[in-house]
Amino acid sequence: MIKRLCVIGVGLIGGSLALALRRAGVVEEIVGVGRSLDNLELARERGIIDSLSRDARAAVAGADMVVLATALGATAAVLDRIGASLEAGATVTDVGSTKASVVAAARRALGDRFAAFVPGHPIAGTERSGAGAAFAELYIRHKVILTPLSETDPRAVERVGEMWRAVGAEVVEMSVDGHDRALAATSHLPHLLAYNLVDTLAGREDAERIFNFAAGGFRDFTRIASSNPRMWVEISLANQAALLDAARDHHARFATLLEALEAGDGATLLAAFERAKRARDEAVVPEANGPE
Amino acid sequence: MIKRLCVIGVGLIGGSLALALRRAGVVEEIVGVGRSLDNLELARERGIIDSLSRDARAAVAGADMVVLATALGATAAVLDRIGASLEAGATVTDVGSTKASVVAAARRALGDRFAAFVPGHPIAGTERSGAGAAFAELYIRHKVILTPLSETDPRAVERVGEMWRAVGAEVVEMSVDGHDRALAATSHLPHLLAYNLVDTLAGREDAERIFNFAAGGFRDFTRIASSNPRMWVEISLANQAALLDAARDHHARFATLLEALEAGDGATLLAAFERAKRARDEAVVPEANGPE
Repeated sequence: MIKRLCVIGVGLIGGSLALALRRAGVVEEIVGVGRSLDNLELARERGIIDSLSRDARAAVAGADMVVLATALGATAAVLDRIGASLEAGATVTDVGSTKASVVAAARRALGDRFAAFVPGHPIAGTERSGAGAAFAELYIRHKVILTPLSETDPRAVERVGEMWRAVGAEVVEMSVDGHDRALAATSHLPHLLAYNLVDTLAGREDAERIFNFAAGGFRDFTRIASSNPRMWVEISLANQAALLDAARDHHARFATLLEALEAGDGATLLAAFERAKRARDEAVVPEANGPE
Repeated sequence: MIKRLCVIGVGLIGGSLALALRRAGVVEEIVGVGRSLDNLELARERGIIDSLSRDARAAVAGADMVVLATALGATAAVLDRIGASLEAGATVTDVGSTKASVVAAARRALGDRFAAFVPGHPIAGTERSGAGAAFAELYIRHKVILTPLSETDPRAVERVGEMWRAVGAEVVEMSVDGHDRALAATSHLPHLLAYNLVDTLAGREDAERIFNFAAGGFRDFTRIASSNPRMWVEISLANQAALLDAARDHHARFATLLEALEAGDGATLLAAFERAKRARDEAVVPEANGPE
């Protein structure tokens, strides 16, 4: 049971968690923190939060659970602000798409309270944002990755895990590095490729005709290029090393594929396409698991 | 009105066209040609075709409309077989994903009957195949691109256009080169990138964990990597020049993006991501247009 939950950033992610925890009956009181008063008031009207504040430092006083759900680029500053005013016994977690960068900021900001911080990442979301987009079912059957460190308090990990399971999520633990490498490969690199493809085509003189004949495959492939550019710059830079590593692997292999194409080497193309089809058909989580 | 339609290759594409033409009441008799007797018999059971043949040369006799809907790699051989037995006044069209390669084969095979050949490409399909997958609504509100040459008989172009409009498609004309460049950019290159990404990740030692955490964005992005590898090798090689051109553009721009990422140059990343988001949001055909 959470007595007082402080959600910093009441958007799709933080707002949906608050809604779902309230519906599950596992939270007594919820305070929402954010920069936009309009968004916070909308969240209160929708019953997502009970009270609101624009001051994270004041709002965490009395909270036994603090969830950082701001944009990744704001996380370090928020941690700096709340570090000194956290209650004894309070647990802190986040929802950021990269973990090493957040862990470094938390270690710096929280000092001897760092053991109470449980790095987290729910693999869920939609292309919409803000408190108006929040809905209680967002996390049902979605994975939430926790990346506790050796010094993280096991009771804090257990509390955060319980919170996510209460809203229907499947909680898994990974290392910080394992998380950042896996997400670089399956999420951050695809975004980079999709942005780059659309940007490449938009720069061609026949761009208009090209986009005019873009069919279903192209729409699916480039859907993620409609994501928030600023958010994805933050994620790319925060996960720079792992993303560069995955992107360079892809880039080098693509060069080999283009050589085969130029040489008319169908056997090499076929081998690559067949390996890929087999891997995707066998390994990718079922479609029914819902959007990221 | 089509008196006798000969569909060579009664799969998803050819079968759906036959079903839809019959439903529209614009065809009197349909003969289906293919290699697999099982598939042809299924097509006859489903009412897609009236009679069946495994001999394209014999089957085109008496047909006033011939639709080539085989795999791209089989098109040239089929054209060679039917060239001499086409009726005077018969119109021939195809459904291939690339046009220059098909036009070259048709010019070679059809000789002085080349004017009766109208190169075509319906931008429609699903991941399923065979006569069992055919359905009459496949082409409704989908584009069909025709790429007539200067020597193509305008009456043949008109007949083929009428046929596609009768099944609900929107018919547009483009040059052979324009088609091949547009499709290289929006379809063939995305397939190459998706295959390459999945192949790259499958080769990593943490492949299993990586795929295990692949969420919605990854599923959408790599859906096309589940396409038929052999078909996509044929398409890639048939559209080699245009595909290489588009792929090299992408590859060079991606290298620039990686340099910016390595340098921590957020401004360059942001500019590219914003151009891409704007182009996709403004230009891509609406989601409601259905799958490719």
